[in-house]
Amino acid sequence: MPRPVLDFWFEFASTYSYPAALRIGPLAKEAGVDVRFRPFLLGPIFKANGWDTSPFNLYPTKGRYMWRDLERVCAMHGLPLHRPEPFPQMSLQASRIALVGLAADWGEDFCRAVFNAEFGEGRRIDDLDVLAGLLADLGVDPASVMEAAQSQEIKTQLREQSEEALRLGLFGAPNFVTADGELFWGNDRMEEALGWAIAFSGATETKE
Amino acid sequence: MPRPVLDFWFEFASTYSYPAALRIGPLAKEAGVDVRFRPFLLGPIFKANGWDTSPFNLYPTKGRYMWRDLERVCAMHGLPLHRPEPFPQMSLQASRIALVGLAADWGEDFCRAVFNAEFGEGRRIDDLDVLAGLLADLGVDPASVMEAAQSQEIKTQLREQSEEALRLGLFGAPNFVTADGELFWGNDRMEEALGWAIAFSGATETKE
Repeated sequence: MPRPVLDFWFEFASTYSYPAALRIGPLAKEAGVDVRFRPFLLGPIFKANGWDTSPFNLYPTKGRYMWRDLERVCAMHGLPLHRPEPFPQMSLQASRIALVGLAADWGEDFCRAVFNAEFGEGRRIDDLDVLAGLLADLGVDPASVMEAAQSQEIKTQLREQSEEALRLGLFGAPNFVTADGELFWGNDRMEEALGWAIAFSGATETKE
Repeated sequence: MPRPVLDFWFEFASTYSYPAALRIGPLAKEAGVDVRFRPFLLGPIFKANGWDTSPFNLYPTKGRYMWRDLERVCAMHGLPLHRPEPFPQMSLQASRIALVGLAADWGEDFCRAVFNAEFGEGRRIDDLDVLAGLLADLGVDPASVMEAAQSQEIKTQLREQSEEALRLGLFGAPNFVTADGELFWGNDRMEEALGWAIAFSGATETKE
């Protein structure tokens, strides 16, 4: 019987993608689910809605609620929270580097490092020096990775992945998509999505 | 020690207010929390955002997701779901009648009956005959209630309650507001809100 799988679609600029990215590894391991990290860009999707920035900026009341709710969520999971300025951060370079890493063996660690830097420490992830520092911390050569991240292949891959996100009906982040195409939106749907992935695969849920 | 209290702010037209309204009674009783039902109108709040209808209609991708997610949520809680047409329903009359009932002893039952009719059976809640039938089922005289619902006092109360919702920073529904002013948005935050209400009151959580 194949192991259950779950696609984890996230955007580095997305606030709730931070606790999701930090939580999903241990939870999926405990549940016996294989997770695939799928970074994508929300910018083009927001533009299709006529938005030129995050809806949390366009609708300040909702934005104020989100930051307070995120404080509670992070506190519940023991995660530090420092709001990055500006918000949202430009996530293009981090996303391209992540794709390089996800084709190697340091991609998920890099994704967690980016989220930790951005929302745990309030650092800028549009700063190539910050990203190079994260790579060096992972024992990866920043110069060669930065060059690979600017390749036409990676640029195309990120654009196609973002187009796939649009086709899947994603309108925010994070999202979880099961092998049978069931979509779950939001960090608070992670447990439900893992359960769905297990039920669809026919495996017995191992999570207690 | 005072019992924990929680304000439950909902809008009859709101989809996720349906499972919330049906769930909160038993959950709050088990948790030892006193809940106050606070119907309000989202229309004026949406208008302040420049929206002339539900964002689920304005952003069809998000709307499609919401209906699928609501199916899953209702299935999880054993609640029937029939989408009312048109969506959203005009909730003005149901809200005014609810205020009459909440000052008497049949208000919460009426609120549940409205949500059951609207989303459980797909009936129109802008139809005064439907609302009169729900009142009769509760053993309440529809004619006198309908008259009271058109009083200046009730109209003013609903307007003031909706203005209070705006001041509280509500931008959707359902919401839970604790005595110390903590706001939780969404049916999926109900358990967290109940826990917060208990912690603030200093009571010991009785929910297992």
